[in-house]
Amino acid sequence: MIVSLYPKKSEWAALTQRPVLEQQNLQSTVDGVFDAIKTNGDQAVLSFTERFDKAQLSSSVVSDQEIKAAQQRISDELKAAIQLAAQNIETFHAAQKPGRVEVETAPGVVCWQEAKGIQKVGIYIPGGTAPLFSTVLMLAIPATIAGCDEIVLCTPPGSDGSVNPAILFAAQYAGVKQVYKVGGIQAIGAMTFGTESIPKVDKIFGPGNQYVTAAKQRAAQLGVAIDMPAGPSELLVMADETAVPAFVVSDLLSQAEHGIDSQVICVIKSESQVRAIQSELEAQLAVLPRKEIAQKAIANSKIICIAEDQDCVDFINEYAPEHYILCVQNEDFYLDQVRNAGSVFIGNYTPESAGDYASGTNHTLPTNGYAKSYSGVNLDSFMKKITFQRITATGIQNIGPAIEHMAAAELLDAHKNAVTVRLDYLKTRGE
Amino acid sequence: MIVSLYPKKSEWAALTQRPVLEQQNLQSTVDGVFDAIKTNGDQAVLSFTERFDKAQLSSSVVSDQEIKAAQQRISDELKAAIQLAAQNIETFHAAQKPGRVEVETAPGVVCWQEAKGIQKVGIYIPGGTAPLFSTVLMLAIPATIAGCDEIVLCTPPGSDGSVNPAILFAAQYAGVKQVYKVGGIQAIGAMTFGTESIPKVDKIFGPGNQYVTAAKQRAAQLGVAIDMPAGPSELLVMADETAVPAFVVSDLLSQAEHGIDSQVICVIKSESQVRAIQSELEAQLAVLPRKEIAQKAIANSKIICIAEDQDCVDFINEYAPEHYILCVQNEDFYLDQVRNAGSVFIGNYTPESAGDYASGTNHTLPTNGYAKSYSGVNLDSFMKKITFQRITATGIQNIGPAIEHMAAAELLDAHKNAVTVRLDYLKTRGE
Repeated sequence: MIVSLYPKKSEWAALTQRPVLEQQNLQSTVDGVFDAIKTNGDQAVLSFTERFDKAQLSSSVVSDQEIKAAQQRISDELKAAIQLAAQNIETFHAAQKPGRVEVETAPGVVCWQEAKGIQKVGIYIPGGTAPLFSTVLMLAIPATIAGCDEIVLCTPPGSDGSVNPAILFAAQYAGVKQVYKVGGIQAIGAMTFGTESIPKVDKIFGPGNQYVTAAKQRAAQLGVAIDMPAGPSELLVMADETAVPAFVVSDLLSQAEHGIDSQVICVIKSESQVRAIQSELEAQLAVLPRKEIAQKAIANSKIICIAEDQDCVDFINEYAPEHYILCVQNEDFYLDQVRNAGSVFIGNYTPESAGDYASGTNHTLPTNGYAKSYSGVNLDSFMKKITFQRITATGIQNIGPAIEHMAAAELLDAHKNAVTVRLDYLKTRGE
Repeated sequence: MIVSLYPKKSEWAALTQRPVLEQQNLQSTVDGVFDAIKTNGDQAVLSFTERFDKAQLSSSVVSDQEIKAAQQRISDELKAAIQLAAQNIETFHAAQKPGRVEVETAPGVVCWQEAKGIQKVGIYIPGGTAPLFSTVLMLAIPATIAGCDEIVLCTPPGSDGSVNPAILFAAQYAGVKQVYKVGGIQAIGAMTFGTESIPKVDKIFGPGNQYVTAAKQRAAQLGVAIDMPAGPSELLVMADETAVPAFVVSDLLSQAEHGIDSQVICVIKSESQVRAIQSELEAQLAVLPRKEIAQKAIANSKIICIAEDQDCVDFINEYAPEHYILCVQNEDFYLDQVRNAGSVFIGNYTPESAGDYASGTNHTLPTNGYAKSYSGVNLDSFMKKITFQRITATGIQNIGPAIEHMAAAELLDAHKNAVTVRLDYLKTRGE
């Protein structure tokens, strides 16, 4: 890890910078796949699945039999673990249900706001070596609570045409009724345009590689909403002497193993902590199965020593970490000043992986400094808020003249007239 | 207006289609301006202002004197109208303040969610013939309630270097302390990169022409969030025999006057209503100052007759109108089934222009069917929600084993290990 001792504030901007990713221009690849799906529907989808996933399928639909068979292929322990995680995720997201907000802003003018579930949502779950069934729970459970009518899940098949059984089990457990064996750009394209078998959706959620990310960006331009911009995973740990170095390092490594472009930052109060962290890091890294990946990510990562608490919180808010572990004695001071972070993990017994799986919070979080302006996925992400207003005759008499003045000043006469015709009508009726 | 009587459901897709806009590729223009601002800051901004707005300025900053002078140039009636509108907007948006959501999801596992104001927000207000000071209120008031630290407002100057006084008055009244005379692409660029005088912001709000829209899209790719995709304004009126035709028509025209690409739709229950609406339309259109614009928009617009209530609500949800006026006897049935709309206006005395100015609801709303997945601007738009978790020793002992199983099944060993080191530590301490 790169060690930075007591950096000046003028150096912060460089320290908060994320590794710059090589941006490949994938747009023409995406457009080619999208055009084919728009024109040829399922037939195009199946041929891309054959080309990219080496799987020959007669249909992308995952059958009920496949879902039942998946149940048999998972250990009872894993089933119980998934069920426990699902329960906590459900409890926390159900508590987020927004109430109706209603106010009489002026006599006779009642305004309210109601949240409604987005009707059709799409969930993309990547395939590959790590089968992210936990992400199925993180997206399908809040979608169900939000009252989405249709939840469509796409995930790529292996070359034998099968889908990871844990993904199917989690989907079934979370109430997803439509699962399709389709991955990559073609999955996002199918949910953007709809095909004979795969429905068009209103919003697409889920992680993915650079192809999936580029496809989601294109979908957004075509009118389908997406969850948030995606980037490599990251973690910032704020640790004083009360933090157990072995725990701190285990957390740093749990992010570092995601990929060589992951970034972890450890902010400490005193340089005396550096040695303990570094030696613990060597020990834990040596025995880690994904050592190769973690080692490369760790090489890009930083231990930053900042003496004053206020400077620590300012630096952290400037960095805006996706995951923020806080393990300090004066916890309240730090918590009070959190402005920019995806999810915060407090104390020695709150590893970041708890939030990845089972504490109940969502693990789809803003990376790359987006925590300055984006929330992580939460119940809101699956709903939209609609406003309503009901104005009585008295109400329009109260606020109508103000509307007439403002509309006239904005030179919008028809806007003004919509009030005037009503006020005149009331006047002629003697009201 | 185009009249469609009792269309089949197979014809709905065509009827819900928006006029297709010619998409000009403005990206290279945007990139040129952005690059210049990134490199040369204020100097570039001032030279674009000279080129595009024909105003020679030595600084983009609006001075306190200019703000004071603006106060003198506005009638007391307009001031009072702005103050009444501001009060209602404040009342409704303040009521939207989200509370802290806290749950103990499992014994020893406490999770909570808190909303925090986005630190720096930018507001863009277009210039031109219609000075949209109402939009200043709609964006600056919720930003203040949300607790945003900095609110930056950019609006183009006239060729004499002045800004519309109503915009300055509204900004000052809503608590905006930083106003800059800069418009178009250069305004969005300045707020994206920051210059010597104009701060970089975290999120940009506000309407604009196709140049501004393209610049906001580019800003979004560069890491600055934006409010929502922009499109021409639109209105759907659902009217049965209880709706007063003169009111219905005044509302249709108030949207039609926005621009020739505006679209209005009137859904009626019986074809007997067609005649009354058409003759009222001719009468009102004849005396409208912005007749030219409204006439063109009306030519693209539709009266659609649908017999059954259930079909009416299904059609309206499929269309997903930005503004939805509901004027029917069985109001409750319709309200109960609203799924997709920006803002809903109920009854004969609730013109759409009430929501544009003074009822208290926000007028920045999703167009072009985006109401299926996007909320209009509301207090949430200026905040992000952060999750927190605090797990005790008992808590990690409760959920730790589930995390270990799931992480192992996802082949993420370091994630598993972050729990294992803690559980082992507790075991050796006999806890």
